[in-house]
Amino acid sequence: MISGERFVVTYLIFGSWEEAFNRAKDICIEQTVEFPVNLLPAGIITDQVVGRIESFEPDDAGYKAKISYARETTANELTQLLNVVFGNISIKPGIKVEHIDLPPGMLSQCRGPRFGREGLRKLLGVPRRPLLFTALKPMGLSSKQLAELAYKFAIGGIDIIKDDHGLTDQCFAPFAERISLCSAAVQKANRETGNQSIYVANVTGAAGTILQRAKQAKEAGAGGLMVAPALVGFDGLRQLAAEDSISLPVFSHPAFIGSYVINKENGLSHQVLFGQLMRLAGADAVIYPSFGGRFSFSQSECEAIARATQDDIKGIKPIFPAPGGGMSIDRVPEMYRVYGNEVMFLIGGGLFKQGADIVENCRYFRNLINEFVSA
Amino acid sequence: MISGERFVVTYLIFGSWEEAFNRAKDICIEQTVEFPVNLLPAGIITDQVVGRIESFEPDDAGYKAKISYARETTANELTQLLNVVFGNISIKPGIKVEHIDLPPGMLSQCRGPRFGREGLRKLLGVPRRPLLFTALKPMGLSSKQLAELAYKFAIGGIDIIKDDHGLTDQCFAPFAERISLCSAAVQKANRETGNQSIYVANVTGAAGTILQRAKQAKEAGAGGLMVAPALVGFDGLRQLAAEDSISLPVFSHPAFIGSYVINKENGLSHQVLFGQLMRLAGADAVIYPSFGGRFSFSQSECEAIARATQDDIKGIKPIFPAPGGGMSIDRVPEMYRVYGNEVMFLIGGGLFKQGADIVENCRYFRNLINEFVSA
Repeated sequence: MISGERFVVTYLIFGSWEEAFNRAKDICIEQTVEFPVNLLPAGIITDQVVGRIESFEPDDAGYKAKISYARETTANELTQLLNVVFGNISIKPGIKVEHIDLPPGMLSQCRGPRFGREGLRKLLGVPRRPLLFTALKPMGLSSKQLAELAYKFAIGGIDIIKDDHGLTDQCFAPFAERISLCSAAVQKANRETGNQSIYVANVTGAAGTILQRAKQAKEAGAGGLMVAPALVGFDGLRQLAAEDSISLPVFSHPAFIGSYVINKENGLSHQVLFGQLMRLAGADAVIYPSFGGRFSFSQSECEAIARATQDDIKGIKPIFPAPGGGMSIDRVPEMYRVYGNEVMFLIGGGLFKQGADIVENCRYFRNLINEFVSA
Repeated sequence: MISGERFVVTYLIFGSWEEAFNRAKDICIEQTVEFPVNLLPAGIITDQVVGRIESFEPDDAGYKAKISYARETTANELTQLLNVVFGNISIKPGIKVEHIDLPPGMLSQCRGPRFGREGLRKLLGVPRRPLLFTALKPMGLSSKQLAELAYKFAIGGIDIIKDDHGLTDQCFAPFAERISLCSAAVQKANRETGNQSIYVANVTGAAGTILQRAKQAKEAGAGGLMVAPALVGFDGLRQLAAEDSISLPVFSHPAFIGSYVINKENGLSHQVLFGQLMRLAGADAVIYPSFGGRFSFSQSECEAIARATQDDIKGIKPIFPAPGGGMSIDRVPEMYRVYGNEVMFLIGGGLFKQGADIVENCRYFRNLINEFVSA
């Protein structure tokens, strides 16, 4: 009945040795049986179902505990995997999820990203250089105005042009109209430039509408989809990426997710949340706020995310880190030194600041990237 | 095009006066247009779409800013409402959502809870006293063993018997088998006792399966449904509660949600998360860890949740607070003093600790409650 396969979660636990070790023991119970230990029926439950401390040792910031769980506790569900990893203990202070290691039997159940880095590069016709990524905004523009912007971005050489994450189905630019005009605008520009830029539609929305919007977007000619997993659930992202009838690259957006990483002593590490989980769920690219912008991530946190997008995980493709959040074109050289070629530079408002001519700003950005790569 | 209706979010903002005021100004932009202010096209966007500081004043812990947003920014979507309230700023330190005020036009779009306190009391045949609530556990028991437990709980007088939140569709007790045996067990007990106890099935699962599991549960005779909104998305909860073909009371579980409240200077307040949002999304009862148990909430935080479950919100029914999380029967008197009659006491493992005879433990719990009410 039990495969014997176990997955391992590394927790960073805070407090004195004794407090931290008691927390580790508590995690084993809380995340599985949630039951008085001395009353647990002996057998499968005590031997297999209860979490097991595999190691416990001091770390720079606290104690590092590796705890293993039986694969069967997750019922092969992503929701239940998250529940075992950090369900009830999300409500307890002093515990941070540092890493998740899944055994081969569990990884083979994860489809992961459909395109990954290689697939996206092929789709976009960009074999080597960093990808250029921007957002249609501000909210309040009409669909026609957004489509005009999309056209200019594509003419200027931006590879990926996405809806701002706040654009859903507002009266200013209703979903069906917006995706249709923006898809057409980018296709028109592609015919003129010979590029293969894509328009990425934001399909974050009500539970029953996400797949439907994704199908509409595909039919309208969108080249990708964006969704915010903290708003629709991580499994909403997985479902979207896994749907064969849609089969478009999926971009994850960090809206509403920050509270999981912002506390040093509670939550999920940057690499687990933006690297491992997004990738396992099937995102082809993960958007997150880069260091040096208007958000709070440090350079080492961003580097850890970038590493986790490409760490060797059997059968799961590497994906693109897409750092953004208040980036400007003049920060690109610094970011290139950190991220190298395997990155999407997401510059939104910053593309407007450079000068009055949007197309020229895009070309400036594109030339800058070309120079790095040829240097 | 714009109704002029605005909703108001109260943020608690940390830092010096200047820092906090700059954060308030930043929220107005970040949560709506996310665009360089000096480049915003004048008109609807600057006048209506951008957030507006309605008041800014010192508070015990920082500064309290009331910021209003145009109703149209949310596209009448719960996901987009959450995005406007706390999307990108979830990634910024020093901002906590304290309260949300929706105008009548937005409230009339929210269905809210189908049963609420009154509906649940009618369903359970319990007009006045606190409700008794427990969980089937530990994970690893067979469906038959869980059903035997359910029977004993119901015979002992527990009103609501739910799946432990970790029980989904594991091989130990597969969903279809478990809900069928547990529903039958509680119905059998009801025939013997004359009570109207209900079995509540956990339907947290993959994005495409939640409504389907809920329908199966209803057909099997379950009397309620549980879901963890942080795992399935808040809109998954809303969709479940709103589905007329199901029409069962819905219980929200806090798994994976703790990081939103555990940080004093980031996230959502206890009353917003467990009171307002659960209620607006349609939960009939909200499970959360009570003060004095094995979690970290204070008595005043729990009182704030309880108040928010019943604050007057036009057209939205009051719901039950269901404090649990390491509660034992001997803590019931203290909890009764705080919560009064309008509460569900969720005692899980604690019901087993009282003594070897589960039915007797339940009767002891029930008698204790009866004594309070008649006192």
